[in-house]
Amino acid sequence: MDLHTNHTIHAHQSHHSWDNAIPPVLTVAPGESVEFAVQDASAGQLTARSGVADVTALDFAQINPVCGPIRIDGAKPGDALKVSVLAFAPSGWGWTACIPGFGLLADQFPEPALHIWSYDTTTAKPAAYGPGGRVPLKPFCGTIGVAPAEPGVHSIVPPRRVGGNMDIRDLAAGTELYLPIEVAGALFSVGDSHAAQGDGEICGTAIESPMSVALRFELIRDAQLPSPRFTTPGPVARHLDGKGYEVTTGIGPDLMSAARDAVRHMIDLISTRHAMTAMDAYLLCSVCGDLRISEIVDAPNWVVSFYFPRIVLD
Amino acid sequence: MDLHTNHTIHAHQSHHSWDNAIPPVLTVAPGESVEFAVQDASAGQLTARSGVADVTALDFAQINPVCGPIRIDGAKPGDALKVSVLAFAPSGWGWTACIPGFGLLADQFPEPALHIWSYDTTTAKPAAYGPGGRVPLKPFCGTIGVAPAEPGVHSIVPPRRVGGNMDIRDLAAGTELYLPIEVAGALFSVGDSHAAQGDGEICGTAIESPMSVALRFELIRDAQLPSPRFTTPGPVARHLDGKGYEVTTGIGPDLMSAARDAVRHMIDLISTRHAMTAMDAYLLCSVCGDLRISEIVDAPNWVVSFYFPRIVLD
Repeated sequence: MDLHTNHTIHAHQSHHSWDNAIPPVLTVAPGESVEFAVQDASAGQLTARSGVADVTALDFAQINPVCGPIRIDGAKPGDALKVSVLAFAPSGWGWTACIPGFGLLADQFPEPALHIWSYDTTTAKPAAYGPGGRVPLKPFCGTIGVAPAEPGVHSIVPPRRVGGNMDIRDLAAGTELYLPIEVAGALFSVGDSHAAQGDGEICGTAIESPMSVALRFELIRDAQLPSPRFTTPGPVARHLDGKGYEVTTGIGPDLMSAARDAVRHMIDLISTRHAMTAMDAYLLCSVCGDLRISEIVDAPNWVVSFYFPRIVLD
Repeated sequence: MDLHTNHTIHAHQSHHSWDNAIPPVLTVAPGESVEFAVQDASAGQLTARSGVADVTALDFAQINPVCGPIRIDGAKPGDALKVSVLAFAPSGWGWTACIPGFGLLADQFPEPALHIWSYDTTTAKPAAYGPGGRVPLKPFCGTIGVAPAEPGVHSIVPPRRVGGNMDIRDLAAGTELYLPIEVAGALFSVGDSHAAQGDGEICGTAIESPMSVALRFELIRDAQLPSPRFTTPGPVARHLDGKGYEVTTGIGPDLMSAARDAVRHMIDLISTRHAMTAMDAYLLCSVCGDLRISEIVDAPNWVVSFYFPRIVLD
């Protein structure tokens, strides 16, 4: 699909780690736009015909490829890179997996699992989940960032001050993202496209879905941004909040434990009420449920809540 | 105001700690409703005419009174108490304070501060903030819970498995809350009414505002609920999401540090852009901005985001 940009970066123009020594595949002028043909997070190892055995066989050296890097002409350390998220052209299929050792409840879900999604690219119709439910879609890129100043090879998995695998589900079309630039030329890359995800990405994967994304780049001189920030042009949850939420809580002195408790309680609620396996509920929660910090000041106990949109299962 | 309930609990019928030995002020049958005349969290020590010196003079022994306890006839340990939040009758005034030693950024805001709010009780009009901005209102009770099984006096400040000071801003009218019952009769109490608050209650106070609240009680037998949960009848953020959000992030291996970073970055953004003191931005963020966990699986770094609704300052 032609997203009407100034340049196109193809899927093979990608890399698998952050390293400011990787040569740029393209230089753009501020104000220009680029279409990126983003692969899914498995780099094509999983397809619409994959089964759970393919999850076990994943080669992690290939995981989470990012298109780029793009050099932004004139970008200097201390500037901010403004990335306008223009449009997505989704592929119509995706996958959600439980990958052993990965995910918020990895200890409780040691076995692999895989769900293959099919969705309509021409309408905004929610995607049907085989075990039950319909998930509203909102495409975004999970990994979006620039090269860190520190030399050497840095894992693609964790996000950093310069962005990367932030998995922020509201970086949807219309959003303006600002990234702190640490090296000359910025060296921007993007990947890990998702058709939908809840806040937290609790099982470790979203609706992982290859798609093209169009972005425009501008420079904010000497912004000295401490961390990524973004502006959304409007509401972020109206595609799924129409029927309200079921909400579970985790309460205690550790935010991570409280988050795990809140999610466990939702998995128990959904799997019992809708006759779904715990694994199916876990994957479903990851693609549409949100982790929020309800209270972080009433020492010594905090409240983390997990919001599951009722429209998905009602 | 008459909220058309079966019973009324007045402001003086209150207590200041959780203790299952406190005798109930009323016994109700399942299905009955009660109106509670909830005091503000200072128990009247702060008024619409208070100044910052009154914050310094606060007697903490009087803080956070809760109306009750109410005995629910026939309630047994293991049952759940279903609390239907029927209606609020707000008072039209409130306060937000920075109380030294209290709040997510207590180390960075050691001085006291106080803002007095006035709002219209007959319309849904946002409340004007003196330093700038208009905050949409959504009343709820910060403290709502039942007595713990463990004997003795327990502080009113932290929430627990049985609820309490959860400060969950979406426990608004129409919500159904389920609380785990640990003692015969449940022994329900409620207080800490807020006219508005963001997820996190980051400065430690909301728009603290006395108001009457009407609740209805039912029992779910042998629910064996692990932690409070609730159901919202519809969207939870449409009163403030119309113009989207400004969002800042905190990225790192500790959720608490990431939350602090995200909030600090928002305070810097707002105070710079709107020529507001950092303290004013801190109080404003507490009453309308939301802490969310965007990503909690990409080890070793998590992303906590702070969402500030643009409608407040645009």
